[in-house]
Order: sequence, then structure tokens, then C-alpha cells
Amino acid sequence: MKGRAIDLNSDMGESFGSWRMGQDDELMPHITSANIACGAHAGDPNVMRATIRLAKKHKVQIGAHPGFPDLQGFGRRPMQLAPDEIEASVLAQIGALWAIARSEGVELAHVKAHGALYNMAASDRLVALPIARAVAHFSREVYLYCLPGSQQEEVAHEYGIRTVAEGFIDRAYEPNGSLVDRNTPGAVVSDPAEGARHALALANGSISTRGNSVLRLKVRTLCIHGDNPNAAQIARAAFAALLLAGYTVQAPTHG
Amino acid sequence: MKGRAIDLNSDMGESFGSWRMGQDDELMPHITSANIACGAHAGDPNVMRATIRLAKKHKVQIGAHPGFPDLQGFGRRPMQLAPDEIEASVLAQIGALWAIARSEGVELAHVKAHGALYNMAASDRLVALPIARAVAHFSREVYLYCLPGSQQEEVAHEYGIRTVAEGFIDRAYEPNGSLVDRNTPGAVVSDPAEGARHALALANGSISTRGNSVLRLKVRTLCIHGDNPNAAQIARAAFAALLLAGYTVQAPTHG
Amino acid sequence: MKGRAIDLNSDMGESFGSWRMGQDDELMPHITSANIACGAHAGDPNVMRATIRLAKKHKVQIGAHPGFPDLQGFGRRPMQLAPDEIEASVLAQIGALWAIARSEGVELAHVKAHGALYNMAASDRLVALPIARAVAHFSREVYLYCLPGSQQEEVAHEYGIRTVAEGFIDRAYEPNGSLVDRNTPGAVVSDPAEGARHALALANGSISTRGNSVLRLKVRTLCIHGDNPNAAQIARAAFAALLLAGYTVQAPTHG
Amino acid sequence: MKGRAIDLNSDMGESFGSWRMGQDDELMPHITSANIACGAHAGDPNVMRATIRLAKKHKVQIGAHPGFPDLQGFGRRPMQLAPDEIEASVLAQIGALWAIARSEGVELAHVKAHGALYNMAASDRLVALPIARAVAHFSREVYLYCLPGSQQEEVAHEYGIRTVAEGFIDRAYEPNGSLVDRNTPGAVVSDPAEGARHALALANGSISTRGNSVLRLKVRTLCIHGDNPNAAQIARAAFAALLLAGYTVQAPTHG
Repeated sequence: MKGRAIDLNSDMGESFGSWRMGQDDELMPHITSANIACGAHAGDPNVMRATIRLAKKHKVQIGAHPGFPDLQGFGRRPMQLAPDEIEASVLAQIGALWAIARSEGVELAHVKAHGALYNMAASDRLVALPIARAVAHFSREVYLYCLPGSQQEEVAHEYGIRTVAEGFIDRAYEPNGSLVDRNTPGAVVSDPAEGARHALALANGSISTRGNSVLRLKVRTLCIHGDNPNAAQIARAAFAALLLAGYTVQAPTHG
Repeated sequence: MKGRAIDLNSDMGESFGSWRMGQDDELMPHITSANIACGAHAGDPNVMRATIRLAKKHKVQIGAHPGFPDLQGFGRRPMQLAPDEIEASVLAQIGALWAIARSEGVELAHVKAHGALYNMAASDRLVALPIARAVAHFSREVYLYCLPGSQQEEVAHEYGIRTVAEGFIDRAYEPNGSLVDRNTPGAVVSDPAEGARHALALANGSISTRGNSVLRLKVRTLCIHGDNPNAAQIARAAFAALLLAGYTVQAPTHG
Repeated sequence: MKGRAIDLNSDMGESFGSWRMGQDDELMPHITSANIACGAHAGDPNVMRATIRLAKKHKVQIGAHPGFPDLQGFGRRPMQLAPDEIEASVLAQIGALWAIARSEGVELAHVKAHGALYNMAASDRLVALPIARAVAHFSREVYLYCLPGSQQEEVAHEYGIRTVAEGFIDRAYEPNGSLVDRNTPGAVVSDPAEGARHALALANGSISTRGNSVLRLKVRTLCIHGDNPNAAQIARAAFAALLLAGYTVQAPTHG
Repeated sequence: MKGRAIDLNSDMGESFGSWRMGQDDELMPHITSANIACGAHAGDPNVMRATIRLAKKHKVQIGAHPGFPDLQGFGRRPMQLAPDEIEASVLAQIGALWAIARSEGVELAHVKAHGALYNMAASDRLVALPIARAVAHFSREVYLYCLPGSQQEEVAHEYGIRTVAEGFIDRAYEPNGSLVDRNTPGAVVSDPAEGARHALALANGSISTRGNSVLRLKVRTLCIHGDNPNAAQIARAAFAALLLAGYTVQAPTHG
């Protein structure tokens, strides 16, 4: 396992207009890929550009983070869109970020769906499909970050898209591989040391779940949520723990 | 002058969600380039895709038609945005359309600002500048449609962008080259025959204005407004008149 | 049954900004109550005011027509909102219309939920509840239009709100009282004579459904959809047929 | 002057969806009236309700704070709307807040325009007029907060609306009574002691301006901006200083 590459990703650029969200400045130095909101559930063109510049400064790989067109709900409220609507919306979001990234001399390296869109795509083929199609139309060079074993992963492979299996540093798992609901006590990891241990276990491919089962899963990227109040400290601790354990912490494009 | 190329352009894809606008189906067969709204003042990802497909079917060149982010005001209400905000917004709009066009196997060939953004850019360098910068960042291969003699044209040339001078088939001119206000009687041409004569005069470089002055101007593209109730008939008549007079009616990319 | 009152209602004010929708001018003379969109799924403050004026001119009772905050989807895409979010949103929508109506010297007489919100409230208590609460907070004098036998009707009665049972003139019914899906052939009635017969059958309390069952239902208001291309003719024919059959065609407030 | 009443107001409820803004919890205990955003430039129905509840808890008078419909620009970007559009928009915003306030058993006591709308209404009669008309239509019992000597104040009096002249605790003044531009050094007061002295001088009717002129003005309410990082401390210090100087610190409705 020595030297195996692991990516640390986080959702970035979730501010909007005059509203700030997240701790992009603190967190960016401690991650290797940034999922940047594209203006539908969060972000706006100014925020996108500022976030791209910040990522560039810290040599962090960037990707598009499309979500449902629901600003008030932050893309977390499930919506029923037709597959065609999802595909067009995801394309438009990727394109908006692409053009701004291009103006900054940066390429998009991956795509990761946001919130309810990510969750629904994990189990609903009619949501996963248009996301995969949008990515395939945009570029077959970009990676699609997916929950391992999800419908999204399966569909992406059918479309010849390279996927990156994702684990969550700051979230507890159910025995079936899904995340423990945010509102359940213990669902969210906020202690940096615990986060680091959890990151290491995920990288090693075996974690203990709620109810003390052991879950085996193979992930190539680890997500740390920017709305976790200790996100920067957890990311820094995880980064250090992974390095110490012999992992190479880097984005998939360098992997 | 024989064989000189003239383009017929129109604003397209201005529907939004369940709301229809314009007569895209009727008009598309009679134009050579389509300015497609990008979701800020009109259009949405589904509409963009449908409009791109319609243009492709009729072999009409497509371009991005960015406007102010004001859906209710249809981008016609002047807004004071910082130059940086304009540049980022225009980039995001171009990119959104670009990605959907790419998924349909079509390239963007031009950019034309919409409504209040177009008008302000004609005389205000701080509006013209960020539009030119956005276009230059996107691609130096695309054309920027401009009012001849405008700040936008001047700034575009400073940035090395190729411009296309635009005249308006269905609108009367003031002696100074600006358009007669829509609310003035006679400002809007609705008779196809009159539109055709006006198109020919514009192509020939000399039109009579309000107050019977003669205005000389040199244009390479002629705009017909989609909200003109006779748009399709005027476009067809103008197309025929230009052909008969020996012009080649085609988009700049083929010119 | 002679002289029993029946209301003819239609969704009105669904234009937005520069986009026109519906045939409000043609339809308003032939209905007795207008459900006016409140800016979330359709309508804007200018449209609300114009629609209120039109209704006032034709002595048509007005009511609020709140929907999901999804302009692009026209409030027809199911969204998962928390009950508290629904209640606050419905209150804000009713209040917006109320203030404009007040400035025109008109009172709101009823509320009817729109699209996916109406449909979900018919069967989901957690959607019906916050709508009823919003109405109860606004005023116990207004009527809530509901599908007869729905969760919405039941919950409204628990809150002491007066309901008005609604039937649909231009739509075919399933044997269980739900509407035949729009995409099924024969789902939408477009012939005025057939619409008039259907209206009369609904008023009489017994209609034949898909599969030729007989469905008994008791309604006090009949809806005609404004997006039906023959809406005005159907409404006029239904109005006449109801009058001829001895019904008094009038809004609930006058009933 | 002993016992004269002075109001302390602040803009509140400027969060939106998942985005937090301002320090409402810290500031509310130290003010006497709250201007609550109505969903056009900031705020949403959930935020409105939470803010109303917070104000109610602290016995703070509430008012509507309508702004331009420009969420991304936070209502600070000047927009050219027709007077009719402004009037309808302000009515809809007041009504939305009114309905939610009513559901919490609270009355709206005042209206204050926000950002660019407030600034434009100070000098442009065609902006001031529709605001005054909207307020007059809503209720002649509410107060309109205005810059003293502004067009807004003059127009409001023509419409028989009671105005409340406003001074700004945390902003330096120009000799002509306008505020020093935010970007000028010294424009914003951030020291609580200095804010308290400035509040007292404003209450006393005479302040020293930039360039050390003396400006006489008569105000009945003092605004403290919620985006001032020391807003709560400044408000507390000003409240105490005013009390010590013998003023009664209370909202206009109690004055």
C-alpha cells in the first residue's frame, strides 16, 4: 500500500453575492482538490473566479460542483427534474465554471455532484444517467467523484468515464455504506484527531460503522465538509496522518 | 460590391421555463446567425439546447447573447455592475452556452451583448471593456457584434478581437447613428417590403434617417428583432432582396 | 338542485416579466373566481397588479395561488420542503398579493395551492398542514379550494378553515377521483361542447371516468386551465350550460 | 430636550437560505426598531419569521425594509426601474413581511428603503414617489424612515405619510449632510465610544463633519449598520449614552 495516492477534496466557493460561507482561505492549503459551486445552488461568477484563484495559488486541482437550481435550499432539497433537464443544467454549470477557469489559465479536472443531486444519483439511475452524459459530453478527461458502489459509479463506467471513489472523513457510516443521518448524535466528526484516524482507516480500506460493524470500501479521494467548524484542522490532521502512514496525498490527475 | 457578404442575425432562445417568447421556429430558416440567450436575462439550459438544435438543423451559425442578470427585467433595465462583475458574468454565460453547444457538436462563432448591456457598452468604456476581456479570454476566434463607431468596437480592437458592425433592419435611425426610441411613432419597421428596402440600404451603406438626413454606415451584419410580430416575413423579404441585389447572405465565419 | 351555486375558477396572472402566459383577457369575462400567482412559481408584482385590475373590471373574485419557489419549473416539479418552509413561503406569497390587492381596493377571498404543491397536499399531510396553517394565520374568512376527499380538505377542517371542493372541467378522471395523467390520450378536454357537458356532470355530482366507471363527487367550484388553448370557449360554454341547467354561477363569497 | 425620544434602528434579517449575515442575536437587545429584509435583496420567508420572533422576544418594533430585486447585488447596485415597477415591488415586499408578522401576532410599524433604493429615493423624485405611494396604500399608520431634507421626506409629506428623520451612528458626514463614501478613510466609525459620542451629537442636533464643518440636523431615529463588526458594542454604548444624557430610547410608535 506504501505510496498509494489519496486525494483530499472539499466543497469550495459556496459563498454568494454578499454572503460568505465556508472557510475557503483556511481550508484550501490543506486539500488537494476543490469542488467549486457553479451558481445554481451556491456560488456566483465573482465567487467562482475568486475561488479558482485561491485554488491556483495553493496548487489545488479544481472541479465543477453542480447542484440543483435551488439557491434558497442550497441544493439540499430533493427536486424532481426530468433527466433532460438535469443533463442540460449540469452542462451549463460545468461550462460556466470552465469559462472562468479558462480565463485564469486553469483546467477543470473533475466533476462532483452536490447535495441532493449527489445523493439521488447514488441510488437513482435516472438521475445518475444525465450527470454521466453531461460529463461525457464535456470531456472524457475529467474524473467523476462518486460514492463507491453507487448507481452513479456504475452508469459512469457504462459511459466510459473515469470515476474516483469517495469516502467522507468527517461523517460516520452505516453498515451498508451510507452515511449516518446528520441529525443523529455522533454522525459528524468534529475532533481533528478522530478525523485523522477515520481518514487513515478509509484510506486503508476498512472502517468501523455505527453498531460496530466493519465496512470494507476502497476509496481514492476523501471529502472534508467545509461547513464543519473544524474543517481546516481536520484536513490538516488527516493530511499529516496520511503522509506519515506513507500515502502520497495528491489529486487524481497526478495519481 | 457584388458578392459582398451580409449576415442576418436575430436574438433567439429567449423563452424561459414554461414561458415561450419569439418565433424561433418561423424565423430560424431565414437568418444566418443566431444570438442565443444564456440564462441571465432569458433562456435556461433546456431552452439553450433546443435553440442550438434548431440552429444546427437550419445550418445557422450560433453565438452567445449575454445580458444583465435580471430575468424579470429581461436585461433591459440598466444596472450598475462593477467591471469585474460584468466580466465574470459574461464569461459564465458564454461558458454555459459553450458547454451545451459542445454537447450538440456545435461551436460558438460570435458574441453579442443584449439589451441594456449592449446599449451601455456602446457608449461606456467601463462596460465595453469587461465584455471585450471576457470574449478575449474565451476565444480570439469568435466575432463580437457591435454598433459601428461604438466604444465597444473601439475597445474590442484594442484587445485584438474581430468585430462585426451591426445594423438594424426593423428600426429607424437618428441622424447620429443611434436608433429612434421604440416609443416614437415610426421607430419600428413592421412592413416586410419596407424592411427589405431598409436592409438593402444598410447593406449599401447609406440610409435616410429621421428628419431625412442621409447617414453613411458600413455594416456586415443586419439584426432583425424576434419580438417584431412580422420578424419572419421581414427576414425572408430582406434575405431575398439582398440575394437579388447580388449580396452573399452568410455568417461572418464563412465570409 | 335548482339555483345551487357553482363557481368557475381559473389560474390567472401566470405571466412573468416580459413573458406572457395564458389568455387572461379572453378568459376573465367567463369565470367567477381567479387564482392569482404570487411570484414564486409565476407572476411578479406588476403582473399581480394588472391581473387584480382585470379581475376587478370583470367583477371576478380573486384569491392567492401560491406555489413552490421554482420559476423555471413553474411550480410543477415536486420539491421536498420542510413544513415550516412551506408555511412561511405560502404566507409570504399570500401577503404579497394581499398588499397589492389592498392598494387596488380589493380583498382576497380564497387560496388555492398551485401545481406540485396542490398535488402533494392532496395526499401528504405534511404538505397540507402548513398550507392550512398559513391560511388560518392569514384569515379565517378566506376559502381554501381543495380536491374533495383530499388530505388538504381534511386538515383544513381541523383548522376551522372553510373549504371549497373543486372539480376540473377540462380533465378526464380516473375511477379513484384523481385526474388522468396529462400525457395520456383523452386526458385533456379541448372541445367546448364536451367541456360544457363535463362541467354539467360535475355540477350534478356524477361523471363517467376512464374505463367508464361512474364517479360520484360533490364540488362547489369548477376549474378551467388557462393553458388549455380553448379555455375561453370552454369556460363560456360551461357558464352557459350551467345557467341553462338552473345553476347560479358565482363565487363562494356570494354563495 | 430632556426626555426627548430617540429610536435606535438596524437592518435585520439579511440572512438568506443557508447563508448567515449580520449579528442579529447580539444586536437585537440593544436597538428599539428593526428594519427587516423582505426577500428581494436579502431575507427569505424563513429568515423573516425567525427575525420577527427575535424582535418580538426583545420587544423591538419591526418594519419592512424593501430593496431592489437583486439578490446577488444585495440591493446595492443601482437599477433603473419604472415608478410603477417600484411601487408594485415595494407593496409585494411589505405584504410578504406583513403576512408573516401577522402570523406571529406582530404589526409592522414602519418602512425603510434599503441600499440603492434608499439612496436613489433621497434625491430622485421618481424613485421616492412610488415608495411613498406603496406605503400610503399599505397603511397611513406606519412611519417612513427618511434622510432629513431628502426628496423621500418631501414626497412622503405630500402623501400624508408620517416620516421619521434618520441619522447614522457609525458613519461620518459630509458638510452637505450626505454620508462620506464607505471607501474613504474615516468614513466608518468602529470604536464604540466614538459611536456613542456621535450618537449623542446627532441626537443633540449638531455634528462635526469631514473638513470640520458643523452640520445641524434634526433626527428622531439613529441607524447602526449590522455589517459593522462592532455593531452590538456601538449600539449598547450609544443606548447607554443616550439614556445618561436624559433621552428616552424608544421606537416612534411609543414616542
